[in-house]
Amino acid sequence: MPIKAVVWGENVHERENAVVAEIYPDGMHAAIAAALNEDDAISATTATLQEPEHGLTAERLADTDVLLWWGHAAHGDVSDEVVERVAEAVWSGMGLICLHSAHFAKIFKRLMGTPCNLTWREAGERERLWLTSRNHPIARGLPDHFELENEEMYGEPFGIPEPMETVFVSWFEGGEVFRSGATWRRGAGNVFYFRPGHETYPTYFDPNVRTVLRNAVHWANNPAARVQGVTDAPNVPVETALEPITERGPKLHADGEEGFR
Amino acid sequence: MPIKAVVWGENVHERENAVVAEIYPDGMHAAIAAALNEDDAISATTATLQEPEHGLTAERLADTDVLLWWGHAAHGDVSDEVVERVAEAVWSGMGLICLHSAHFAKIFKRLMGTPCNLTWREAGERERLWLTSRNHPIARGLPDHFELENEEMYGEPFGIPEPMETVFVSWFEGGEVFRSGATWRRGAGNVFYFRPGHETYPTYFDPNVRTVLRNAVHWANNPAARVQGVTDAPNVPVETALEPITERGPKLHADGEEGFR
Amino acid sequence: MPIKAVVWGENVHERENAVVAEIYPDGMHAAIAAALNEDDAISATTATLQEPEHGLTAERLADTDVLLWWGHAAHGDVSDEVVERVAEAVWSGMGLICLHSAHFAKIFKRLMGTPCNLTWREAGERERLWLTSRNHPIARGLPDHFELENEEMYGEPFGIPEPMETVFVSWFEGGEVFRSGATWRRGAGNVFYFRPGHETYPTYFDPNVRTVLRNAVHWANNPAARVQGVTDAPNVPVETALEPITERGPKLHADGEEGFR
Amino acid sequence: MPIKAVVWGENVHERENAVVAEIYPDGMHAAIAAALNEDDAISATTATLQEPEHGLTAERLADTDVLLWWGHAAHGDVSDEVVERVAEAVWSGMGLICLHSAHFAKIFKRLMGTPCNLTWREAGERERLWLTSRNHPIARGLPDHFELENEEMYGEPFGIPEPMETVFVSWFEGGEVFRSGATWRRGAGNVFYFRPGHETYPTYFDPNVRTVLRNAVHWANNPAARVQGVTDAPNVPVETALEPITERGPKLHADGEEGFR
Repeated sequence: MPIKAVVWGENVHERENAVVAEIYPDGMHAAIAAALNEDDAISATTATLQEPEHGLTAERLADTDVLLWWGHAAHGDVSDEVVERVAEAVWSGMGLICLHSAHFAKIFKRLMGTPCNLTWREAGERERLWLTSRNHPIARGLPDHFELENEEMYGEPFGIPEPMETVFVSWFEGGEVFRSGATWRRGAGNVFYFRPGHETYPTYFDPNVRTVLRNAVHWANNPAARVQGVTDAPNVPVETALEPITERGPKLHADGEEGFR
Repeated sequence: MPIKAVVWGENVHERENAVVAEIYPDGMHAAIAAALNEDDAISATTATLQEPEHGLTAERLADTDVLLWWGHAAHGDVSDEVVERVAEAVWSGMGLICLHSAHFAKIFKRLMGTPCNLTWREAGERERLWLTSRNHPIARGLPDHFELENEEMYGEPFGIPEPMETVFVSWFEGGEVFRSGATWRRGAGNVFYFRPGHETYPTYFDPNVRTVLRNAVHWANNPAARVQGVTDAPNVPVETALEPITERGPKLHADGEEGFR
Repeated sequence: MPIKAVVWGENVHERENAVVAEIYPDGMHAAIAAALNEDDAISATTATLQEPEHGLTAERLADTDVLLWWGHAAHGDVSDEVVERVAEAVWSGMGLICLHSAHFAKIFKRLMGTPCNLTWREAGERERLWLTSRNHPIARGLPDHFELENEEMYGEPFGIPEPMETVFVSWFEGGEVFRSGATWRRGAGNVFYFRPGHETYPTYFDPNVRTVLRNAVHWANNPAARVQGVTDAPNVPVETALEPITERGPKLHADGEEGFR
Repeated sequence: MPIKAVVWGENVHERENAVVAEIYPDGMHAAIAAALNEDDAISATTATLQEPEHGLTAERLADTDVLLWWGHAAHGDVSDEVVERVAEAVWSGMGLICLHSAHFAKIFKRLMGTPCNLTWREAGERERLWLTSRNHPIARGLPDHFELENEEMYGEPFGIPEPMETVFVSWFEGGEVFRSGATWRRGAGNVFYFRPGHETYPTYFDPNVRTVLRNAVHWANNPAARVQGVTDAPNVPVETALEPITERGPKLHADGEEGFR
């Protein structure tokens, strides 16, 4: 059974900006989904900001193995409720891939616990991505470096927690560097951030970028059943302790009481 | 100049529960601050939930090197504005030490990006903390293990991101284990979680626990000046690029424009 | 095509000690391989210390996806040349799973860069393994805890580098704890250490342990082609630099010279 | 009491090569030690390959808080016995800072457990180091980036284990990037690798580089007493178990017997 990927697109620039619309006439999300669907082991669909609940109902998320997220101009329009729903899905095992300007998406900042800020310049300069972890599953089939002739620059310091693994580091023509591919685990969910993908360049048609996207979906997929009650903090009564113990000392909580949250 | 520590106490149980009041007549925060002040290199004061802005004004935080946090029954009463202020202080370099039930404090969950849940049992059972990182600065002067005869049990799985370092792991009489001491870095701020400290037991009078608290303040202190504009994402104009570049390709942003957030 | 696993067994106790021989009449390696072969997606064979080159020729390693290692009494008899060969295979992408007393195997210490020491007691006491990373691929299908009624105790502090992920922590009847399942990446190779498996107990017949072994083989497998020249440090001549540069300043090395190692 | 730093220099190029001798007439180790001694809180001396036991007797190491290591042409001449002695000192709490070509020093490879390889080019090109961890103690007082006008290039992929923290990433004029500053913990010892420092350029006279060196000594220093018996794996007899247990099941080891190593 193929991995079920959902590509979430903000879907604003491609409708409002002629340059972007020409590159991505069906929307950036459609181009990304098409890249994924070149792999028979992936079945990718799309969701957008403008749909009810941004296309991310509880039912949809429960049936999603890996969610990809592209947002930029409308981060603030994403409902906090949907963000929490996505976070909980990640904790329970859904993979999440945040793309380019999604470094400032609510869901990415929510899961990182840091500002996720950076420096930037939109000058169509050359970016060269270097592998820092050869043969990492996300880098499978890639050379030790590859180039994007025109990209927006993102520069360090990048306000993220230390990654579990740094997979790519970018060199920019104007003199900056950036940790362009990095992984984290949040609960049972695998999280990957991938830098390239500015809306005014045809980045998502680049063969190496498309390889990374497909690889990342495979890497992020956790085939285990979702963790149930992933935020629960259950009381373990004395009577059912795994080793026999006798209750001692004063207590605050009455028996069977719920804990404070 | 001593390290300026602020011990934040929820200050609810000690005013409402006779058992807790007897153990901590001046409040838990006062007992913790007293432990810190036994070290001439630390100057500890206190702040409580009930004070205006919970005692954590911008001025106070700007003058705090390390904040310690004990909360339990009233996590929900902490203002979101103060939580964001504390988060920003941490990112810019303030140390943060979260104690016991503060695993569910808003500020801890905010910085971790995970549920921070666990299992628990209030039975006054024996806890034995084992060092997993000998001679870690936080464990300086401690034996390889020490015991607390009566403590609340917290059990794995503990819903945290993989720590930068795991310093202590606890054994419980009733059969559970727990990662009782763990570190993370968030921006320029050092974060430490330390498990023991249930309100109905005299844990904060235990000499080994007090040693951990003092060590942790030294470890968490970042003597560098605070990072200014820690959430800023500045544009770097083409004209001031470190290497000479020529602007190419289409642009979305006008010159000097602020980025989307 | 199934994952090719090789179970390396020291094969000493089972030939010299009646107790071990009775539990593992065909050797511990055979029991472990049988557990793996219950999974159609794994094809497991064995190799032992007593074979020429310990059964680990360059050809064999080149054709091995994941190597499992059980050793104890004869760590010192393993040839340093074979250890280096295995290390290089790991760096280039072969998975490695070190079992129980293999914490002191030359290959494990070689890859960790630390003493890998611990405390121990052979008393047939109860061990309870707790998940610290729910739904980690290695823990797939397991409950939050499981027990082994008789095991050797290994206790903290365990002299390992901070793991990439801590998957299991053990509770012991006699009062100790231990990080029983931990992962690292070394080059392109995934490394997993799994604690249980003392030779005088039937641990490798335990269903949960067998599940961990199979899961770990899937997790450790890196399907990418091996990295070639994994220890090479190639010179990049000025003439072939990716960006045009002019040689400046004094030089130590003549053109095309090999670097010092 | 100042931190006792020892700067170990291979001391070959400066005696055999006129270019290096002119830049570093007293040896590179002397220049590095002078940089450290500008800080009253550090007391730095030197040791060289040519001294008996390379200047690193057990007594010397026992009295060293932080060891800095510069080697290149003569890695192979360093005695394996001294390497093991240094490794054990690190595990027990001595800090270690490996500089530039010491990526291939026996001691660095020994502690990393990986090939530590990279790509390189000696063309006097521009290197720009970017902070990836603002206000990290090692980066205290530094701007977000600084430049070295002439340096040897080291390029990714760099064959190291994932760092505990990545502190600097370098940009090179010829198109490469490199993780130029990275930390690890090995036992109780803090390890830092810092890339710059090619022998034919006056890198160790650069003010920012000197700041990094001094900061790194402070960061690497572990003021706790050394861990004794850091490689011991003691048996814990049943009679002295922390919780009362009864011996059960068959045994391999006789009482009080040493474990296998």
